[in-house]
Amino acid sequence: MLKWDYTLYLVTDRSYIGDRNLEDCVEEAILGGATMVQLREKTASSLDFYHLAVKIKGVTRKYQVPLMINDRLDIALAIDADGLHLGQDDLPIEIARRYFGREKVIGISVSTVEEALLAEKSGADYLGAGAVFPTGTKTDAKLVSLPELSLIKKAVKIPVVAIGGINETNACDVFHTGIDGLSVVSAILARKDPRKASAEIKARITG
Amino acid sequence: MLKWDYTLYLVTDRSYIGDRNLEDCVEEAILGGATMVQLREKTASSLDFYHLAVKIKGVTRKYQVPLMINDRLDIALAIDADGLHLGQDDLPIEIARRYFGREKVIGISVSTVEEALLAEKSGADYLGAGAVFPTGTKTDAKLVSLPELSLIKKAVKIPVVAIGGINETNACDVFHTGIDGLSVVSAILARKDPRKASAEIKARITG
Repeated sequence: MLKWDYTLYLVTDRSYIGDRNLEDCVEEAILGGATMVQLREKTASSLDFYHLAVKIKGVTRKYQVPLMINDRLDIALAIDADGLHLGQDDLPIEIARRYFGREKVIGISVSTVEEALLAEKSGADYLGAGAVFPTGTKTDAKLVSLPELSLIKKAVKIPVVAIGGINETNACDVFHTGIDGLSVVSAILARKDPRKASAEIKARITG
Repeated sequence: MLKWDYTLYLVTDRSYIGDRNLEDCVEEAILGGATMVQLREKTASSLDFYHLAVKIKGVTRKYQVPLMINDRLDIALAIDADGLHLGQDDLPIEIARRYFGREKVIGISVSTVEEALLAEKSGADYLGAGAVFPTGTKTDAKLVSLPELSLIKKAVKIPVVAIGGINETNACDVFHTGIDGLSVVSAILARKDPRKASAEIKARITG
């Protein structure tokens, strides 16, 4: 039985892992405390994305952690992912929902209260709000201050996770805005020991 | 009623059209004699690809010319395209077929007789064989000689279109291998007058 827990939501980016294998890094992150995984591939071919998604699903299934696919409805359908995460430049949620089904989870990236309200109204199951700090993963991301993050959380009923430059140093401050979880990329994947990195962030917010 | 005619199959690439608008170029190409259109976008966001596909579908519908989407099953589903064209690095056809439906057309890119036989066996409705000449559109494409093209055509029962560096000068030679049509990118879209360019190629192969 899949455990839906947004507390520590790993978003992948293979540019941080060097010659390590993504499945191993994801498994280590889960063992350290990651509660959700989003597979994000911006340059892979569709076939490579699909094959990688099949492998990562093998890992997330083992631990009953939900696997979300970033952007690509086709890949989410192909591997029967648990969910799909849509940015503001991805397919409209109404279209994704038509093919992906009511029982699946769809998240939307937002950076304002307005976008958050619109996303909730259009049927999003959760929101990814950010970037809370400048980030190397998405250099063009709009910034969302901690007070704005708190306003976004208060404006909607669905879960809100924060994303963008979150690491063990700022995790506690971000989490205490009242949100449901933290999305982390480099502060887990760029570290030599993703398990330890996950455990450290997890301890700061649940300890 | 949609006319399925592979004779002159335009494949788009916005890098060739400068500041012109793709809808206009596609419309001109159809007026000049293009019988099919494949929308190919390798760098656009999913949302931009979707919006562009909606616009191009408006044009192809007007002339009852089939619209194929390159690579992306999600975009093909989103706009209810007439077909999907899959490269060797795209999703496996079995998966695309599961979601895209039996009545839709799925084409596969091949560059050997072996790939052609496999694609036909896996349910492809037509094949795109190439590159018959070196091409600026796909610099890493494997080359297929005209005798090989002829062998591919003879090996399968489904329609075969040739692609890769085809222009008004070589169109006649390529077409006379016995294939069903020519896929053209730059020799239509990079020209100042896409209608005239299409008409010239069409005249060489049907005249």
